Amino acid sequence: MHNLPDLTLNQYSLVYNFLSLTIAAMLAGFVFFVLARQSLAERYRFSMVVSALVVGIAGYHYFRIFNNWHDSYHLVGGLGGNYVATEVPFNDLYRYVDWFLTVPLLMVELVHVMKVERGVRGSLMTKLVIAAALMIALGYPGQNTDSNAVRALWGTLSTLPFVYLLYVLWTEVGKTMAVEPPQVAVLLRNLRLLTLATWGFYPIAYMAPFFGLKGAGSEVFTQVGYSIADITAKVGYGVMIFAIAKYKSGNVEAEDEAARRNVAGSSVAGSPVRSA
Amino acid sequence: MHNLPDLTLNQYSLVYNFLSLTIAAMLAGFVFFVLARQSLAERYRFSMVVSALVVGIAGYHYFRIFNNWHDSYHLVGGLGGNYVATEVPFNDLYRYVDWFLTVPLLMVELVHVMKVERGVRGSLMTKLVIAAALMIALGYPGQNTDSNAVRALWGTLSTLPFVYLLYVLWTEVGKTMAVEPPQVAVLLRNLRLLTLATWGFYPIAYMAPFFGLKGAGSEVFTQVGYSIADITAKVGYGVMIFAIAKYKSGNVEAEDEAARRNVAGSSVAGSPVRSA
Repeated sequence: MHNLPDLTLNQYSLVYNFLSLTIAAMLAGFVFFVLARQSLAERYRFSMVVSALVVGIAGYHYFRIFNNWHDSYHLVGGLGGNYVATEVPFNDLYRYVDWFLTVPLLMVELVHVMKVERGVRGSLMTKLVIAAALMIALGYPGQNTDSNAVRALWGTLSTLPFVYLLYVLWTEVGKTMAVEPPQVAVLLRNLRLLTLATWGFYPIAYMAPFFGLKGAGSEVFTQVGYSIADITAKVGYGVMIFAIAKYKSGNVEAEDEAARRNVAGSSVAGSPVRSA
Repeated sequence: MHNLPDLTLNQYSLVYNFLSLTIAAMLAGFVFFVLARQSLAERYRFSMVVSALVVGIAGYHYFRIFNNWHDSYHLVGGLGGNYVATEVPFNDLYRYVDWFLTVPLLMVELVHVMKVERGVRGSLMTKLVIAAALMIALGYPGQNTDSNAVRALWGTLSTLPFVYLLYVLWTEVGKTMAVEPPQVAVLLRNLRLLTLATWGFYPIAYMAPFFGLKGAGSEVFTQVGYSIADITAKVGYGVMIFAIAKYKSGNVEAEDEAARRNVAGSSVAGSPVRSA
């Protein structure tokens, strides 16, 4: 929790509207993942269940953040005036609670649509889930302090699982890309880029106090940035997982169809011989 | 956000009831699209998922607008009195957030039921989605200002993607109409007219301040007009997409049936030859 700067009407309402946009995007994502699940082959549906959990959890937290933002400010001086902090503190940590649940689930989604050997899948998922949960848990004490030294300590500790996570993602997704059809490889490459681009925002926002960034502009930038990063990293990410799963579902049907034809073909080809 | 004029009891309650009507229409649309999806051929169901997202997102925003309207006015002087603005500002921008998400999705719906070659589909959809998002994003700063000059600037910028969008829609839908069966061509023509008629309202409402339109009558006209336009452009539009998809689903079955008969027919026709 930190002291909230005074905001102009436009600044306040930009954040307000972005928070509301995020709720709407998460709700829409939830509906999409639940409904779109049925157009996938059975074995890929689980990834949409997990995607729905992620945006459902995020939608809940953004609902809380939105209400908190609303309660933490009041308008002083009418429409020509400013938004000034009330006595209600703004809880920065809703987002940590959200990430603590959702980032490990994003890893589960990813591994689920990757071509990984059955024996390796479980251990890969465990490693990624633990690293993701550690990364968020270690960031929490650093976010919740006014001391730059404490923030730097926990920030550094949190960076270790973060780097490990990126390393594993890079090497494992790279391996998968080599054995998938080109269309899936492109989707996986884009997914990896999206992850890197959006995840890059979080440490920047975390380190803002080191650069002496505070005041109205910094507050608006952070809130809007988090909203965009969360929409992209959750809804956008899930839609890309859907695209991968959809493509692979088509292949599943084609493969099953081919298998069925082989069986039918061999029996047809075989019968004349037998009848002869 | 703008200063709200005093309203008579009838004026206030006309807007109030239209906002409530819109929530009901969006919810009903949501249920319809989710349920009606199952009566379509597999390949057209996605258009109903997107329709459901559109009215779901709009329903969420109208719920917020409705509550905001309720909080922004209070009755002074009992049933013979007037509705007077409270200190709670009325957030005009919920609608922009809504359109930013829903107008691109309306484009996705449309392209999905159009007869477009597979290679062209992706690029057409990308063009339309980007133009739609740009159109709304560029309108936002102009809506959120008291200066007519600033409003004119952003309004003009926003008009460029708007005109581009209408041009692409006109030419591409025209091409599709030429190759579709007459019944589908009529539905597409009506859809195009509906789009033009409803979308025409938004720039008119946007430009109202240039004509010196303010006060109670203008406020009521704008709110009721937006509500009607949003119901038509989202629920009405989705129902027309459903009608197109339904007609085409019948054809899909007929085509598949014909294909199946041909296969059966040829093997029946073929067997005497073999047995002979």
